[in-house]
Amino acid sequence: MTHEVYLASDNWAPAHPLIVQSVIEANEGDAPAYGADPWTLQAEKLIQDTFRAPCKVLFVPTGTGANILALMLACQRHESVLCTDSAHIQYQESGAAEALVGCKLLTVPHRNGKITPQEIRRKLVSERAFGKHSTAPRVISVAQSTEVGTVYTLEELKQLSQLCKEEKLLLHIDGSRLYNAAAALGCGLHELVEAAHADLLSLGGTKNGLLGAEALVLLNPALEKGADHLQKQALQLLSKMRYLSAQYIPFFKEKLWQLLAEQANLRAQEIASFFLEFPQLVLSYPVETNQLFFTAPEATIAAIQEKIRCHLWDKEKRELRFIASWNTSQEEVAAVKRILSGICL
Amino acid sequence: MTHEVYLASDNWAPAHPLIVQSVIEANEGDAPAYGADPWTLQAEKLIQDTFRAPCKVLFVPTGTGANILALMLACQRHESVLCTDSAHIQYQESGAAEALVGCKLLTVPHRNGKITPQEIRRKLVSERAFGKHSTAPRVISVAQSTEVGTVYTLEELKQLSQLCKEEKLLLHIDGSRLYNAAAALGCGLHELVEAAHADLLSLGGTKNGLLGAEALVLLNPALEKGADHLQKQALQLLSKMRYLSAQYIPFFKEKLWQLLAEQANLRAQEIASFFLEFPQLVLSYPVETNQLFFTAPEATIAAIQEKIRCHLWDKEKRELRFIASWNTSQEEVAAVKRILSGICL
Amino acid sequence: MTHEVYLASDNWAPAHPLIVQSVIEANEGDAPAYGADPWTLQAEKLIQDTFRAPCKVLFVPTGTGANILALMLACQRHESVLCTDSAHIQYQESGAAEALVGCKLLTVPHRNGKITPQEIRRKLVSERAFGKHSTAPRVISVAQSTEVGTVYTLEELKQLSQLCKEEKLLLHIDGSRLYNAAAALGCGLHELVEAAHADLLSLGGTKNGLLGAEALVLLNPALEKGADHLQKQALQLLSKMRYLSAQYIPFFKEKLWQLLAEQANLRAQEIASFFLEFPQLVLSYPVETNQLFFTAPEATIAAIQEKIRCHLWDKEKRELRFIASWNTSQEEVAAVKRILSGICL
Amino acid sequence: MTHEVYLASDNWAPAHPLIVQSVIEANEGDAPAYGADPWTLQAEKLIQDTFRAPCKVLFVPTGTGANILALMLACQRHESVLCTDSAHIQYQESGAAEALVGCKLLTVPHRNGKITPQEIRRKLVSERAFGKHSTAPRVISVAQSTEVGTVYTLEELKQLSQLCKEEKLLLHIDGSRLYNAAAALGCGLHELVEAAHADLLSLGGTKNGLLGAEALVLLNPALEKGADHLQKQALQLLSKMRYLSAQYIPFFKEKLWQLLAEQANLRAQEIASFFLEFPQLVLSYPVETNQLFFTAPEATIAAIQEKIRCHLWDKEKRELRFIASWNTSQEEVAAVKRILSGICL
Repeated sequence: MTHEVYLASDNWAPAHPLIVQSVIEANEGDAPAYGADPWTLQAEKLIQDTFRAPCKVLFVPTGTGANILALMLACQRHESVLCTDSAHIQYQESGAAEALVGCKLLTVPHRNGKITPQEIRRKLVSERAFGKHSTAPRVISVAQSTEVGTVYTLEELKQLSQLCKEEKLLLHIDGSRLYNAAAALGCGLHELVEAAHADLLSLGGTKNGLLGAEALVLLNPALEKGADHLQKQALQLLSKMRYLSAQYIPFFKEKLWQLLAEQANLRAQEIASFFLEFPQLVLSYPVETNQLFFTAPEATIAAIQEKIRCHLWDKEKRELRFIASWNTSQEEVAAVKRILSGICL
Repeated sequence: MTHEVYLASDNWAPAHPLIVQSVIEANEGDAPAYGADPWTLQAEKLIQDTFRAPCKVLFVPTGTGANILALMLACQRHESVLCTDSAHIQYQESGAAEALVGCKLLTVPHRNGKITPQEIRRKLVSERAFGKHSTAPRVISVAQSTEVGTVYTLEELKQLSQLCKEEKLLLHIDGSRLYNAAAALGCGLHELVEAAHADLLSLGGTKNGLLGAEALVLLNPALEKGADHLQKQALQLLSKMRYLSAQYIPFFKEKLWQLLAEQANLRAQEIASFFLEFPQLVLSYPVETNQLFFTAPEATIAAIQEKIRCHLWDKEKRELRFIASWNTSQEEVAAVKRILSGICL
Repeated sequence: MTHEVYLASDNWAPAHPLIVQSVIEANEGDAPAYGADPWTLQAEKLIQDTFRAPCKVLFVPTGTGANILALMLACQRHESVLCTDSAHIQYQESGAAEALVGCKLLTVPHRNGKITPQEIRRKLVSERAFGKHSTAPRVISVAQSTEVGTVYTLEELKQLSQLCKEEKLLLHIDGSRLYNAAAALGCGLHELVEAAHADLLSLGGTKNGLLGAEALVLLNPALEKGADHLQKQALQLLSKMRYLSAQYIPFFKEKLWQLLAEQANLRAQEIASFFLEFPQLVLSYPVETNQLFFTAPEATIAAIQEKIRCHLWDKEKRELRFIASWNTSQEEVAAVKRILSGICL
Repeated sequence: MTHEVYLASDNWAPAHPLIVQSVIEANEGDAPAYGADPWTLQAEKLIQDTFRAPCKVLFVPTGTGANILALMLACQRHESVLCTDSAHIQYQESGAAEALVGCKLLTVPHRNGKITPQEIRRKLVSERAFGKHSTAPRVISVAQSTEVGTVYTLEELKQLSQLCKEEKLLLHIDGSRLYNAAAALGCGLHELVEAAHADLLSLGGTKNGLLGAEALVLLNPALEKGADHLQKQALQLLSKMRYLSAQYIPFFKEKLWQLLAEQANLRAQEIASFFLEFPQLVLSYPVETNQLFFTAPEATIAAIQEKIRCHLWDKEKRELRFIASWNTSQEEVAAVKRILSGICL
């Protein structure tokens, strides 16, 4: 570890001590395997309460696993999924949707990381024009917050919901950073899924202070058929499930999710505020959560990468990504300011 | 059949009498099943001679079958295929590549129906930027002639070949209308695959006067592993293979393919020549083979569709497609002129 | 062709002249592609009349294609199919069920080629014992006539139907030789599917005198969802469909299927009758249709194979298979008698 | 938790305190995601040292994941896997091999849980008899220790290795309880894979005292191609990998695996020793590791299940399974004796 500051990813952050404590407490004696233990039941109940819905919850080890399991439950063999060209399911899941689900992803250009009703409608028309020769669109998948750190407003989610209703589509939310979106909007997690009338939610955790736990939340009961079998078949069923689910207990019981997400967002805002002073650093998108994408001259990019561990997101565009995590400290933010000033002034 | 002229598709045309005759002649006594019959051996030999290569030939019932079998042989589970957004494998095979092969299709915008080295390189950079999190690009798939009737020049094919060599990619040609391309360029079929250094060729037939027969031609011997098993597994192995393969015998022996393709191309050129007189009909692409795409005012579109059976290709763009087949007659071309004049003048 | 007699397979036989004639007649002018032509409509109507049901019919090029498409329509991702260990879908489709449908085949030992309710129940208990850790059995697939030439009686089919009802399973019939079964039982084709309450039927043709045509018949309307898309996706949708469907017109209109199947069965019976004279030739199963399986001493096997083209079915058991086709002549039967006498007496 | 003793599964046991400690220690500051952290490198090194081979190690969250990833790397689309009818990959992975890998599992009857060279050879002959119409056998997969608790001797493993060499097959070991086998044989873990010349090893952990961690060990470097991509695609790549891999550090560094496995085996032996006194309890297999399977009269079964939490393995056979874990205490063993005496004497 040779950099001064780490803004590479919220996946690089450690787990919050309360989460570790909860795992330690769950390590008590024998307990039923495969999710029939009391911790899993409690965590599921907490999530149901959080979302104010009698949803079925499948705890899984990876976010990609939650997404793919969602598509398995939502899509028949000939159906397809609409998403942006920057979607995680399209761009960073190593072809899992195609290889494991077998569905086609119909991509449309994103606008600030978001899918727009206009682009969806255009794609629906062209894909449906050839009937059985093309696929049958079935799902819209959106990330909240998006892969570039922006947030769908409640109004935008309602519009997507309306479109889904009109076009008989299901709505899937990739919520690996849902907490950051709720913190940004100052709303409850349940308001996000209610506005969207979401059918399936990939609920994050790992990126917001857990050791490693994600969940697939089935909000539409019609999609539960086969879910237990498919969790196993999709390699997402842990035997000692308690160590996964127990992580969610303090997370929801103490609203730890909110504290951690607010903190990460705040740090990103603080960093973004410096950018006003450095005109050679151009933000690619509004900074609404804990992610910043910005372009800069090549030499500046190189200098920043020497001091701050971060991702060169798009080499051609000379775009860097900073991600603040729950664990990013005020000292680190100050160091970022110092480093950027040294390079840019 | 209530229209005056039929330009809906070369798939609507009947089979040429010599082809039917060849099938009748193959219907003589018992013969080994699954391709071990003398007609299949002869047809394979004729194709090897045509392409001047010791290629393995798999006769299959559909062009989509040939394409999918090609991708099965070329791609590992984590590998992907570059093609245009208008490619048949992307747009009109009902998601077969994803559902059966499991590979991701990486689409790039087409230019006159063609893929360009520049767009390929751009996509390669972005897909490779995230290593194991994305797919490993493995194949470039191009249609010759393209889905919009244009033709890659020999020089363009050489450039693609060079790019494949540099980037360690395989080249697949979807040649469902390869004959029309060769006729347009005035070259031999073998020159097309040689220029491209193609590894796999989906060789058409049905659209150029056969009753129904296509072939997958394996030009790269390294891809033959498992081919026989996969033909069976991919539902492409006919038991009475002789009736498929026999169709190719007069087709290649008598160079019937050339005669029929030239005729279809010529009819399309004749029709295209009328368009100069009707400025409200705007050709979408250069008419290089047997297909014409054009846009027109809505009322004109409707009037044409009443008299001429053809496909409304893109409703939003008000674009119609005319396809001439080997069987399109000079009388039909004259009728097209009369009808268009009546509508447009 | 160097043997005196050909009993290798009904797939080796030529097409009946009336079938060829029907194809020639269908080769008239332009016609809509992909099954919207009048021949396809007529053939579908004839099949509906034959089975006395408003079934949907998908004409496909191969029997394996019909079987696999049936399983795609019947099975969700976590569901499985019960069949015998000798089933075509298990043993001779190169793993297509697993590779393309992704379903598990739960095999049980056959008794004279047939699946028994007792074995099915035993397998259901063991597979269901572990809930989500195993698959959910969904389909029973039986071949009628079976892969070893035996026939399920109407009573046996009723028992399977009853079991399916009790256990909430679907019934699929692989009817690549359904005609031979009906001829053997002296019943109508409709009586077979009615007795079984079959949900899906792979209806043969190629083995009984066609050039090459099979059909998937959907008897349970609840399974039609997505069928058109899946036919395309599964590489089973021919563009010039008329040449496939037209083959079925004389077949059903003139009840040609019955004549040809009766003839094939009769020839097999005649050959079987000789076996009484040759105690070293031991029939493996009752000869109920057009197939004979028998074991013999190694030297006898070799001598037979020199004169009669037939399949060594099981080397270890020294088992040969004879198949009579619609085209097997009385002269050939006489030659078989002569040859066997020469070897065995 | 209402039973006196828990012998349901080694998956029910808690994690060993040293394992928990190692996870706590790994929770220090930022660390690279997806396996590029120092704990993962150290754990991989320890495994390489343990197996005395420069093997590539992929840490994964589930044993089913390790198995399926192994088959993805080993099998082409048309290839198949030989295993027993009691294999975990066949019976208790909810059809994942078929659904995700697409390969056929060719099952053969087990003898005391083991696959035999004789049965393998028989299956090879029958599957290969029909060439492209069947699958191409490619992998033998064995569990060590087996699903019924028995152990392949080093000599038996050598025989399998020899057979693989002769028949050009790969060998996969499902080692979810490899430690118990090594403890039973009193040999090193490396001796097991060396005797078998194993190409791929699913290395357990969760069942032997970890919180939840498994690994796929690639012993044959030719199989590494695409492994990183496939780990991601198969939903087996954790972002915060350190919490998985850190579990293995004390496990191998301190040879904790051996201590825990020996203890579990010993407890099972102690329990097995009581069975001599109760003739109505009939062991199904020799008790070689930490599992006991036994049959008993129905009333006895019911009485045992009331006091001891265990699995009714086969209802029809009235067979129970006891599994001792690293955490099974001498007090529990004594309680088992008391309970069984109360019921059986």
